[in-house]
Amino acid sequence: MLGSAQESLISETPSNARTSRRRLRDTKGTLVLIGGGTSANGPAIGGFMEMSGAKEGAPIVGLTTAASQVSVAREMWLSDLAQAGATNLTIPIVETRDQACDPKIVDSVRNAKGIFLGGGDQVKLVSCLSGTPLEEAIRDAYLDGAIVCGTSAGAAALTKTTLAGNEVDEEGKLVEQYIGPGLGLLGYHTLVDTHFTQRRRLYRLFVAIAEFPALMGLGIDEDTALVVKREIATVVGKGGVTFVDGSSVRFNNASDVTRGPELTISALRVGIVGTGQQFNLKKREVLALLSSPAAREVESRVTSAR
Amino acid sequence: MLGSAQESLISETPSNARTSRRRLRDTKGTLVLIGGGTSANGPAIGGFMEMSGAKEGAPIVGLTTAASQVSVAREMWLSDLAQAGATNLTIPIVETRDQACDPKIVDSVRNAKGIFLGGGDQVKLVSCLSGTPLEEAIRDAYLDGAIVCGTSAGAAALTKTTLAGNEVDEEGKLVEQYIGPGLGLLGYHTLVDTHFTQRRRLYRLFVAIAEFPALMGLGIDEDTALVVKREIATVVGKGGVTFVDGSSVRFNNASDVTRGPELTISALRVGIVGTGQQFNLKKREVLALLSSPAAREVESRVTSAR
Repeated sequence: MLGSAQESLISETPSNARTSRRRLRDTKGTLVLIGGGTSANGPAIGGFMEMSGAKEGAPIVGLTTAASQVSVAREMWLSDLAQAGATNLTIPIVETRDQACDPKIVDSVRNAKGIFLGGGDQVKLVSCLSGTPLEEAIRDAYLDGAIVCGTSAGAAALTKTTLAGNEVDEEGKLVEQYIGPGLGLLGYHTLVDTHFTQRRRLYRLFVAIAEFPALMGLGIDEDTALVVKREIATVVGKGGVTFVDGSSVRFNNASDVTRGPELTISALRVGIVGTGQQFNLKKREVLALLSSPAAREVESRVTSAR
Repeated sequence: MLGSAQESLISETPSNARTSRRRLRDTKGTLVLIGGGTSANGPAIGGFMEMSGAKEGAPIVGLTTAASQVSVAREMWLSDLAQAGATNLTIPIVETRDQACDPKIVDSVRNAKGIFLGGGDQVKLVSCLSGTPLEEAIRDAYLDGAIVCGTSAGAAALTKTTLAGNEVDEEGKLVEQYIGPGLGLLGYHTLVDTHFTQRRRLYRLFVAIAEFPALMGLGIDEDTALVVKREIATVVGKGGVTFVDGSSVRFNNASDVTRGPELTISALRVGIVGTGQQFNLKKREVLALLSSPAAREVESRVTSAR
């Protein structure tokens, strides 16, 4: 499971990686990752409305591509986002790669101040947008200062690497784990999970990071947003965000064992960032600790662990 | 939640603590903690049968005190343990503190080579036995070399501190978290949870250890045994054992926040000990790592963290 397969998942080709990383590092935009379960008047959507200027007429574009029924989801979000205060909102139907190349749609996203990605299936969303002009437009708008907000699958799709499956579906059947490429707006080797406490997903995220310890998992609770500006992430809303950091792993027999029950790993760092608190994604540590008297010690630990 | 309340949960009065710790440290006995979901011919119960000499006629005594229907559970275990190979098995009915003082029952436990504690409700088990001659007999037999095996609630009750509740019951109602005293045979500030992967209990254990970071949680999978001799624990059976170590926590606002979602904590060590692997309970580390070239570094980290 480890080795080259893992490398290819979490790296791009060197030259592209250098270019895109430099551009992402210089972004003027903000990401708002919501853990699903939003209410139109809740704090998570409210944060997106405020930051994007949606209530003052700033153009907001939504995409419901991840949904199994794109039109039904479109109606729902038109209503919810209007109720949340958006006054200049469009949600084009995008469910094919052809539509993701439509110049009119691409232009509207390119010029949006706020871009909203609804929930559903992150694999569906990524496979529809990946490599299209629409994906590029989202990225360009973000680099130029737009607020990009995703909820549930829309949030999970925003990292370079996305996680899905490895849990029981509504019919009680185990869905195979999927770890693959995402839209790549959120770097720092992160992996985002949503509906986190509500769907008891800590074990799923833990197992994913145990398998790919270079990654850091972020589990976002429902009606809770992780607001990311460059490397600083702030938790807003009703719940918290759990982080699972694989960089502390010192023993891992994943490459030697053939059966799951034999997996032995020691140890991942798991912590919680509560609402109102901040987290440094690069240093993988709560800001309150980094700015405390113990900060220098942590800095040196973090640096030497890389 | 922290401070003196926590201290009183995880410590005894100094003089008692010194005496009992020295005696426990010198025990000739073995603990077999099973995560529930056993099968009569499975590897977890099989380990207990073998170590206790049950198949060769060694006296085995079972207690189904934790069960909601003590007699029904008695019939079930009489059948299962006989099927597993026990040839000299008694399961007295113990559901009152009076019965836990019955000299005949106390004597049989005192002279048993294997003592088995069935599942159910660990609070019921502990409150029935606590401070009785029967509890003392279990402890004396253990110190003299008996194998004490608990499954599910029977395993959770064996530590000094036990955890129950803080999850949804069969009727969908949230049961309040209970953390209280246990039978105290397993030291090292451990807290045992069972049915671990199967009931997705990592979050529950994580939250309990976040609240009491001096403790280390051990989450045992179904049909899996943690076999403990002094400080060395070996995983046997179909699953693994997850450990959650609070001693690495460096930031914790639990005493400052009034609402759960504000809880911020960084960070707990979480790892997995797979079947066939060993773990040092005192050093809170997998044995394979302690005996590797990196061992000395870990030793110094563990020592300085205390």
